[in-house]
Amino acid sequence: MSGEATLDRVRVVLCDTTHPGNIGAAARALKTMGLARLYLVEPLHFPHPEADARASNARDVLEGARVCANLAEALQGVVFAVALTARSRDLGQPAVTPREVAPRMLAEAVAGDVALVFGREASGLTREQVNLCQRIVHIPANPGYSSLNLAAAVQIMTYELRIAAGAGALPAPEVCEPASFEEVEAFHLHLEQVMRETGFLDSRKPRRLTQRMRRLFTRARLEKEEVSLLRGLLKAMQVQRAAPTRPIEPTAEHGPAIVD
Amino acid sequence: MSGEATLDRVRVVLCDTTHPGNIGAAARALKTMGLARLYLVEPLHFPHPEADARASNARDVLEGARVCANLAEALQGVVFAVALTARSRDLGQPAVTPREVAPRMLAEAVAGDVALVFGREASGLTREQVNLCQRIVHIPANPGYSSLNLAAAVQIMTYELRIAAGAGALPAPEVCEPASFEEVEAFHLHLEQVMRETGFLDSRKPRRLTQRMRRLFTRARLEKEEVSLLRGLLKAMQVQRAAPTRPIEPTAEHGPAIVD
Repeated sequence: MSGEATLDRVRVVLCDTTHPGNIGAAARALKTMGLARLYLVEPLHFPHPEADARASNARDVLEGARVCANLAEALQGVVFAVALTARSRDLGQPAVTPREVAPRMLAEAVAGDVALVFGREASGLTREQVNLCQRIVHIPANPGYSSLNLAAAVQIMTYELRIAAGAGALPAPEVCEPASFEEVEAFHLHLEQVMRETGFLDSRKPRRLTQRMRRLFTRARLEKEEVSLLRGLLKAMQVQRAAPTRPIEPTAEHGPAIVD
Repeated sequence: MSGEATLDRVRVVLCDTTHPGNIGAAARALKTMGLARLYLVEPLHFPHPEADARASNARDVLEGARVCANLAEALQGVVFAVALTARSRDLGQPAVTPREVAPRMLAEAVAGDVALVFGREASGLTREQVNLCQRIVHIPANPGYSSLNLAAAVQIMTYELRIAAGAGALPAPEVCEPASFEEVEAFHLHLEQVMRETGFLDSRKPRRLTQRMRRLFTRARLEKEEVSLLRGLLKAMQVQRAAPTRPIEPTAEHGPAIVD
């Protein structure tokens, strides 16, 4: 797969955008860098004449944009998602630079779609939205005023992707066969369920604990097989709990057989 | 002279700008990248409310902008000027990339002011304007649509300057407080024990399965707290197995209390 072909695998996801002009300007940024797939999560105004005007000759990108009800919907089928944040909140994982993440995204795109995720202009991404992504990116900026315009941030990220796509050999993907967004989410739900059943999940602070678990497994970047293994183990624990006297046989669905 | 100090030597010169919004957006781009010196050659409308609006918190850059009658006036005292063009006309010298020219500009800035020169939105720089510059820069773009918005082009160039100035690196510790070798090994033993107890660990191929788990958690690089959490969960499962009817209280040693 050529570097430039991988640009077709990149989704640019704008969440909760307030100003329609920014959507149009972002569409133009995509097209000038050879990208085309725009996803809009709950845009305040769309379609809108101002979006059309700012898109200039990238109206086709606007017209092809997919409007989604939430970020999870926009990430269906995505194997690697990158969250853009300007603030260095405690988000549980270290931020990387656009230049570091661009070749990584293209390498991951060999396995499936990848996504750049941008938040609302004034407030950025929510913690929940960031949690759905595998990397956090800060665009290096003036510490005294680091708030780039949304479309300007999209322009920088897509520019870095275009440069990376033309940079010849791509690095090897980090994991063999990355689990999809849905698989990872299903695992987290399963883990939370088991944590509840065992009473380990303190009902007073469940978010903090699930957050920590997310952070750990997000850093690891789960493979398909690993999700199967972990879920198999969780299932074995649940079955065991129901009938604690005898060890269970691993099931075909989530058993060690899949390891080989 | 430090890299970042040389950013003060950079003038951004916008020639014959038609849309005042672009002037404001360019001012914002400058400020987010730590630049401050904006020169406007014959702007069609300036000052203008739309420029103010799009400048956001970079009004100070707008207010400090110098309006000039022609490009020669804006380049008074400049030792190195770079012309941005999107078109590959025969301009008498080969074009370079933003990434190539940024460190060159900073190197020249040791001797005096340097300038980035941008033309009118629709038509770009005139041949006469390009002739006043020492380098021509193309921003790599989609050959099918290479016309970046003016402020977006300013954002990319100033971003490249900031990176070249050495202000681009982020402190990126991989994990906060990594677990020690012994802690990680104790966790793996504990995990193996629980996998055996639940019958999940196929006794015929135990090494393959434990190997996979090791690979996953090694990639994640466990922190101290995470080891505690994971072991707390394993312990809860073991206790629960012994007495499956009631949820257990998390222990002080391995409970969620340590999360905070």
